[in-house]
Amino acid sequence: MAIRTFRSDISKLQLHRFINMATSQQEKAPSSKLQFTLKTPKGTKDWYDKDMVIREEIFSKLSKTFKRHGGTTLDTPVFELREILAGKYGEDSKLIYNLQDQGGELCSLRYDLTVPFARFVAMNNIQNIKRYHIAKVYRRDQPAMTKGRMREFYQCDFDIAGNYESMIPDAECLAIMVEGFASLGIKDYKVKLNHRKILDGIFQVAGVKDEDVRKISSAVDKLDKTPWETVKHEIVVEKGQTEATADKIGEYVKLNGTLQEIHAFLSKDAAITSNERAKQGLDELATFTKYVEAMEIDSYISFDLSLARGLDYYTGIIFEAVTKGSAPPKNAEELKKKAKNAEDASEYVGVGSIAGGGRYDNLVNMFAEATGKKAVQIPCVGFSFGIERIFSLIKQRAEQAAAIRPTATKVYVMAFGGGKDWTGYLPERMKVAKQLWTAGIETEFVYKAKANPRKQFDAADKCGCPLAVILGKEEYLENKLRVKKLGPEFANDDGELIDAADLIKVVNEKLAEVYTDGTDEITKLFQGL
Amino acid sequence: MAIRTFRSDISKLQLHRFINMATSQQEKAPSSKLQFTLKTPKGTKDWYDKDMVIREEIFSKLSKTFKRHGGTTLDTPVFELREILAGKYGEDSKLIYNLQDQGGELCSLRYDLTVPFARFVAMNNIQNIKRYHIAKVYRRDQPAMTKGRMREFYQCDFDIAGNYESMIPDAECLAIMVEGFASLGIKDYKVKLNHRKILDGIFQVAGVKDEDVRKISSAVDKLDKTPWETVKHEIVVEKGQTEATADKIGEYVKLNGTLQEIHAFLSKDAAITSNERAKQGLDELATFTKYVEAMEIDSYISFDLSLARGLDYYTGIIFEAVTKGSAPPKNAEELKKKAKNAEDASEYVGVGSIAGGGRYDNLVNMFAEATGKKAVQIPCVGFSFGIERIFSLIKQRAEQAAAIRPTATKVYVMAFGGGKDWTGYLPERMKVAKQLWTAGIETEFVYKAKANPRKQFDAADKCGCPLAVILGKEEYLENKLRVKKLGPEFANDDGELIDAADLIKVVNEKLAEVYTDGTDEITKLFQGL
Repeated sequence: MAIRTFRSDISKLQLHRFINMATSQQEKAPSSKLQFTLKTPKGTKDWYDKDMVIREEIFSKLSKTFKRHGGTTLDTPVFELREILAGKYGEDSKLIYNLQDQGGELCSLRYDLTVPFARFVAMNNIQNIKRYHIAKVYRRDQPAMTKGRMREFYQCDFDIAGNYESMIPDAECLAIMVEGFASLGIKDYKVKLNHRKILDGIFQVAGVKDEDVRKISSAVDKLDKTPWETVKHEIVVEKGQTEATADKIGEYVKLNGTLQEIHAFLSKDAAITSNERAKQGLDELATFTKYVEAMEIDSYISFDLSLARGLDYYTGIIFEAVTKGSAPPKNAEELKKKAKNAEDASEYVGVGSIAGGGRYDNLVNMFAEATGKKAVQIPCVGFSFGIERIFSLIKQRAEQAAAIRPTATKVYVMAFGGGKDWTGYLPERMKVAKQLWTAGIETEFVYKAKANPRKQFDAADKCGCPLAVILGKEEYLENKLRVKKLGPEFANDDGELIDAADLIKVVNEKLAEVYTDGTDEITKLFQGL
Repeated sequence: MAIRTFRSDISKLQLHRFINMATSQQEKAPSSKLQFTLKTPKGTKDWYDKDMVIREEIFSKLSKTFKRHGGTTLDTPVFELREILAGKYGEDSKLIYNLQDQGGELCSLRYDLTVPFARFVAMNNIQNIKRYHIAKVYRRDQPAMTKGRMREFYQCDFDIAGNYESMIPDAECLAIMVEGFASLGIKDYKVKLNHRKILDGIFQVAGVKDEDVRKISSAVDKLDKTPWETVKHEIVVEKGQTEATADKIGEYVKLNGTLQEIHAFLSKDAAITSNERAKQGLDELATFTKYVEAMEIDSYISFDLSLARGLDYYTGIIFEAVTKGSAPPKNAEELKKKAKNAEDASEYVGVGSIAGGGRYDNLVNMFAEATGKKAVQIPCVGFSFGIERIFSLIKQRAEQAAAIRPTATKVYVMAFGGGKDWTGYLPERMKVAKQLWTAGIETEFVYKAKANPRKQFDAADKCGCPLAVILGKEEYLENKLRVKKLGPEFANDDGELIDAADLIKVVNEKLAEVYTDGTDEITKLFQGL
């Protein structure tokens, strides 16, 4: 079994043939049949170097945040049975990547992390769980690589499933979102929040029939990037509502302010308070407000009646975090019209939000029902961080901030000497490196038996390494090592000659001087600018 | 863009339809068309709970080891252009998962991490890199789930690419492997090592023609699980060598011992030392031995002339780590014959190795050549940890060790009180939790306005939480909190009543008492038993 998971898997004979082909091809013309372009598939890319360092740090900080709230992680397969995804994504289903039918079950790559989560909960009869999932999802969409829209991209979801008292997990989700942003040094944002029941109540009060509520809701959902006049036109002309109904809706959806303000305002509105659904939503929000006040996150929240969010499955609070930096340009609509091709136009769609979510009480039940199981209500509330957008924000910051190092190397072990008898101290450098590795200190040395000082300093420089341990030709024979700080400010500093026995102690001291709390590049980067 | 990455993606109308279908289905018979089985695809599974905690800890410890040696990580797409994988896996190519042709490029799921790495290096003209990659790969193999053989499984690769002086990166790879096992608490293993050039030399000395070397090598590769007589039979009868040739090979491949012993033995063998390739291999191993002695890892290594490893692309040292625990049963061959079906039989193939690798100097060049680029030699040496096998070993250990906790929760915030006027202190518990979260302490509370003490203790117990912070009805009004250690040994301990202002200080002190170095479950687990 083990061998199977290693490199011995590649069949011997066939690979041998490949090697022979490649070799014989070299001898022939370069236009051989074997030729192809070396690239990654459309809409995908390799992540490496500094981008990868930033990305891993984002994942690490968000994972820690989720764990701080009792979250556990779930890792589902990258593909699901095709029927699990069927009927969940409407016309976007055409964007699902299918696996080829090679016999056996028909499968598709996951399109998001929410449907696999609901499948998991229903399949295992999970009664309650706080789960997070950071993983790639797949969409055969028109890619816009420069703007970070890919066919393979990360999602980062947190969800709480279970029958709990009203609004408690909902409030904690908001607390987790706020903590997550704090951990990433993202300060300049607000969380728009609304309640589906209030929104439904408003539509009822305005005279929208029950069967039209969802389509009016989806028109209102466009208000973050479309002026009211355009939305009103859609409501009246396309969605067949009266002018009076549209105007009534318009009065409400323009409202936004603090939770307390808007709640007080709506509570004085007899039309709203006498609508059963709206009243229920208002009562829930009053409870919610008490909780977010206790958790000291109410100041981040703006009660915004224009927020509708696209998904039908939301049944309670809905919310979306937007940064000023990520707001769409004022002339987005105009730019969109001018855009020469679909790819350009798509840049102006949906820019703005860096996290979003809400309560969805019926999704798990759908799976349970669809499999003929006894219907079990497992209410859920959760949200996603918009990883790709957050990455872009932090990447921008990185460009203004100190250089991010691709490696974690803290010490470069060098040897200085010369003359005919000089061995280059390679095994000796290895011995010193070994001591440092054993002490958990990230260490490298130049892969040369005899390396000149310039080349060794250059190598250390290239990876931004802050410290050198130097084996001097004579000094080393006297059991002495030289520990020297690197960087332009220490160019004239010869470092400190120490007893070899004190190596780890001295290196740790010097590293503590270089990396005092909050001064290394990646820490600085995530403190925000 | 951001909206696209969140939950609003599911098209409104279509999902609405799905909800309606699900609802109406509930009203109808359970045998509706919508019915399907809730499961993951064959050979895949969800990872969660304690398994996931162990798995993440393995990844974390190995990543830290790689970083300690200057490693950077690379994240390649889960699918590659089909032509990149074509011709690399011989008859195993039938195990590759293809994506359906939905227009555009033809793609396949990656089969391993080595080919994508070589593609990346060739494509970007990388001159040198130390990269690690921990990710899932895909094979349409016969799964044996109970033994951990899956169609979707993790690989964990480390490779050093670049033109360096002989044997230096090779020796560091071994050092990294040894450190990796140490970090996982795996002690009971040895690393079998051989050199392709020595092996080739032995075959030449024994009278094998050059064109037969690879197939004889693949016969010898079976020696770890097949007796010499069977292998000899294969060499003579199937591979057409003389009895004398086979016997000569047999003399050599039975040899194993320390690097120093076997090197000394072969150096006295005139047949070997006069063979050019064998001599070159011996010289390289002498250098290698000097380096692994310097890094103090030579004692883990057994020079084993029977080790051949399957892959044709190896050109220098090859190595494989085996645990005693993972050795095949003595009667493996017999069991294999008796096995009733292919799945059972496959259990006895290749059990034994928990890591493996070697030097492969031509693979990158193949890609460069195949694309008509100027051939550039980028020599590589690297290895894989057998994650699934290592997981099984540590899981076994976990079953004997203290319980692993699925969550990281350190503090449960509770409230005790009663009477008609008792509110349950929910917002107050939230305030206290908020303080703990802000201090970075993993904290939960029960999602109930009024929770009785039993339920709160049960919830804390269930997640193995070591500490409770209790808001007593009267005590809290006097700005006092009670901090109490949890667990059966503290059943009669009422905890300590403290000033609310001292909360974080006291909690950190008590946690330090509970989690003294090396006493929490996961740390203990990875120290080995």
